[in-house]
Amino acid sequence: MTAMPGFPQMWAELAEIGRHAGTGGYRRPGWSTAERECSAWFAQQAAVRGLSVERDGNGNVVAWWGDPGPGGVVTGSHLDSVQDGGAFDGPLGVVSALAAIDAMHAAGVRPVRPLGVAVFAEEEGSRFGVPCLGSRLMTGALDPDRAMDLRDTAGRALPDVMVDNGQEPRLGPSDLLRDPAAFVELHVEQGRALVDCDSAVGVASVIWPHGRWRLDFSGRADHAGTTRMDDRADPMLAFAMTVLAANKAARLSSGARATLGRVEIAPGATNVIPARVSAWLDVRAADAGAVQELVDAVLRQASARSARDGTELAVALESMTAPVTFDVGLRNRLSVLLGGAPALATGAGHDAGVLSAAGVPSAMLFVRNPTGVSHAPDEHALPADCMAGVDALAAVLTDLAGGGGQS
Amino acid sequence: MTAMPGFPQMWAELAEIGRHAGTGGYRRPGWSTAERECSAWFAQQAAVRGLSVERDGNGNVVAWWGDPGPGGVVTGSHLDSVQDGGAFDGPLGVVSALAAIDAMHAAGVRPVRPLGVAVFAEEEGSRFGVPCLGSRLMTGALDPDRAMDLRDTAGRALPDVMVDNGQEPRLGPSDLLRDPAAFVELHVEQGRALVDCDSAVGVASVIWPHGRWRLDFSGRADHAGTTRMDDRADPMLAFAMTVLAANKAARLSSGARATLGRVEIAPGATNVIPARVSAWLDVRAADAGAVQELVDAVLRQASARSARDGTELAVALESMTAPVTFDVGLRNRLSVLLGGAPALATGAGHDAGVLSAAGVPSAMLFVRNPTGVSHAPDEHALPADCMAGVDALAAVLTDLAGGGGQS
Repeated sequence: MTAMPGFPQMWAELAEIGRHAGTGGYRRPGWSTAERECSAWFAQQAAVRGLSVERDGNGNVVAWWGDPGPGGVVTGSHLDSVQDGGAFDGPLGVVSALAAIDAMHAAGVRPVRPLGVAVFAEEEGSRFGVPCLGSRLMTGALDPDRAMDLRDTAGRALPDVMVDNGQEPRLGPSDLLRDPAAFVELHVEQGRALVDCDSAVGVASVIWPHGRWRLDFSGRADHAGTTRMDDRADPMLAFAMTVLAANKAARLSSGARATLGRVEIAPGATNVIPARVSAWLDVRAADAGAVQELVDAVLRQASARSARDGTELAVALESMTAPVTFDVGLRNRLSVLLGGAPALATGAGHDAGVLSAAGVPSAMLFVRNPTGVSHAPDEHALPADCMAGVDALAAVLTDLAGGGGQS
Repeated sequence: MTAMPGFPQMWAELAEIGRHAGTGGYRRPGWSTAERECSAWFAQQAAVRGLSVERDGNGNVVAWWGDPGPGGVVTGSHLDSVQDGGAFDGPLGVVSALAAIDAMHAAGVRPVRPLGVAVFAEEEGSRFGVPCLGSRLMTGALDPDRAMDLRDTAGRALPDVMVDNGQEPRLGPSDLLRDPAAFVELHVEQGRALVDCDSAVGVASVIWPHGRWRLDFSGRADHAGTTRMDDRADPMLAFAMTVLAANKAARLSSGARATLGRVEIAPGATNVIPARVSAWLDVRAADAGAVQELVDAVLRQASARSARDGTELAVALESMTAPVTFDVGLRNRLSVLLGGAPALATGAGHDAGVLSAAGVPSAMLFVRNPTGVSHAPDEHALPADCMAGVDALAAVLTDLAGGGGQS
């Protein structure tokens, strides 16, 4: 196996796909044209390396070096993006995995265990609203009946969207990864901690618990020019108060994060008082108790203000992800192997967290992000740090999959 | 002319067009399928009455009873709606005009002056953002070059949309109304004043000045789960503060109204801190000074908060409509003719206001709205009050157009 496309070439090829000229961000929601092109690119990269590609009925893909079988070692990440996301979140793990295989090959490594590179479907949840959709279905963490009912903003159901993409939907648990001995996901760092550790690569310790709530503030549509202020039932007011309350509560709760980043207004006209404001509250904190305490406090204030304005508030929990503590033995093994790479907690969910929760010994490597910016066009890692990530991943996979002594 | 479709039949026919089953509101933006059907319905009603229909290159229509010519009397309103608007705003004036002509005909009136029923294009501005688009272009209040550049939310230009509707765009001043001696628009009351006057019909005195500002709050998109609260530049916060400040300022300023009913978030995802929040501020008050004072106060607070959050605020005035004082002689003539109908100020813009500003002696009749709700599905007037409106309009047109003694 010689003259494989190297990291820079692979990176340049992927960089072309799904980038919006206006924002500079990536638009690769699950099963979109852009995501399909990324997926086709991955299949082609697997083919030129002689890796055998397998798919499950949830849209997940794995490319195997060696015969697939139980007890393997799997790495990988995802190729979808949030709307106007960065280039690194997801693709860095996939490209690094292929480059690590090339490096292992060049070093004469012949893995004893099957080695897989996985690409999980709809990790960001940007199309159907459920993050880690592919890995959750694969591990049984998400009820396939619930997934059957998911619809995108155009009102299309997940199975129909999959059929349109030439995939036969068979939603639910799958044995795609063949009961692996370990899963290791490399990912760009989100937030900035490594820059203060003077380290290009870190190891994940825990993923914070994470909840998403849908808040529907409803009032009464009316004419913006003729309705006296006292006669209004304007749901925008309680929404606005909630934004400020959530921000304040997160600042008061050590390290917690609260965000309202998605809002829908109906009817949404300049000269009409809204009938309804729907907003999504995203909260994360170091433990589940802190998340709940923060949300309870915010919702108490939101309800009180809604009542005062003659409007109503309905709240629905959309998802609650329990905290993940990655396998301590595996984490320590990686940290030692990488010369004492620092351990980092993260507020972001990942497929590795879903696999860990499903009982797969899992670990994550983070590649330094000097500004910490993520889910945005400015997301960045330096080329030298990306190369350090590839080297680290190759070392980890060699250690876990065996065969490093055969060269 | 016998057996014309009466008010109830005409009302029932129009009620079918463009009503959204889910919301119960009307969706008739300018040059939409629904608005085109309403327009075709009007042409048919004109035809069965033997009225001659003329159009200008701005999408406005007029149906003449008698030969068109200068010094006529024109009535009418519009058939477009805001998103999920009510049945009455606009159509009540058009249907009442046709019914008034039938009543005059039945009473043997033969007008001395040409009598026109006008339907103006895109009065609500719900498609291209400029209210009274048709009448503003017709009177020269809106620069046709600016109108050429208007785009709807799908990015389509006004002339292209007109061509798609089989209209030849010739934007700019037109002599469609032939220099009329008077224009009278009947309209459903917006807000509630007549209910306290025990009067089914009122006469407009003034239209309040009205401004629309676009507020662009910009910050930095980032990951909702990993970005510390202190590291954020979240433009949602200053937007939220502005909503509350505008509400408070309007309550403190006697009778003023301030509304933020339209908001756009980018990228607009639950797990992404917004990069940009664009919001539209709608302000009306009894005089231009009060409008400006309110807006200045709100924008001062908005700018200060934006700076505090490390975000930025850009403000653009989208439209400023000067106050309109309707022709006092004409208003008094109508009020006396209608047995002392009360005079009402309004915060809503109308084509009659545009014509008045262009020098056409203009007046408005308001038909009682018991709840005051408008621009919403619950907008309502009682059938008996609608009939009183038709009688009042017939009396006014007979008085103004002459010929009432010929029966």
